[in-house]
Amino acid sequence: MSRFRVEVLVTPRPGLLDPEGGAIHHALASLGYDEVAEVRVGKAIYLEVAADSAATAAARVEESCRRLLANPVTEDFTVTVRGEA
Amino acid sequence: MSRFRVEVLVTPRPGLLDPEGGAIHHALASLGYDEVAEVRVGKAIYLEVAADSAATAAARVEESCRRLLANPVTEDFTVTVRGEA
Repeated sequence: MSRFRVEVLVTPRPGLLDPEGGAIHHALASLGYDEVAEVRVGKAIYLEVAADSAATAAARVEESCRRLLANPVTEDFTVTVRGEA
Repeated sequence: MSRFRVEVLVTPRPGLLDPEGGAIHHALASLGYDEVAEVRVGKAIYLEVAADSAATAAARVEESCRRLLANPVTEDFTVTVRGEA
């Protein structure tokens, strides 16, 4: 049994309104960053997971994304094992 | 001038209390995911940035992280250019 570092990125689905991204976009423009054309904001979740293999750790985290970490109606997610802790 | 997709990951500094991560950890445990040993939650910010080069886009976004997107007291950040939009 090893312990794996797993990264989950949860992002708003394309086309969905993202008020937090809009607020950051507006703030960047007011600071002079007018070369920024779009901003979308999601969550980065880092987990340490005990598992027999990286594949098992990824599978368990993907399942937990579907059950808890991401909203399937409004969000997409990616799961990446970043190595052993 | 091209438009680059830039990913910013903002994470709580190690050792700093992360109440949102703690709440997710607790919720995962109550669903049976007791192999999860630690949860840290940050932000994933995706920007589209017009710039002459990927290096310029990254430099501008790094500057905006120091000025706006991340809190230097409590958060670390990484900036990665993910390609052209």
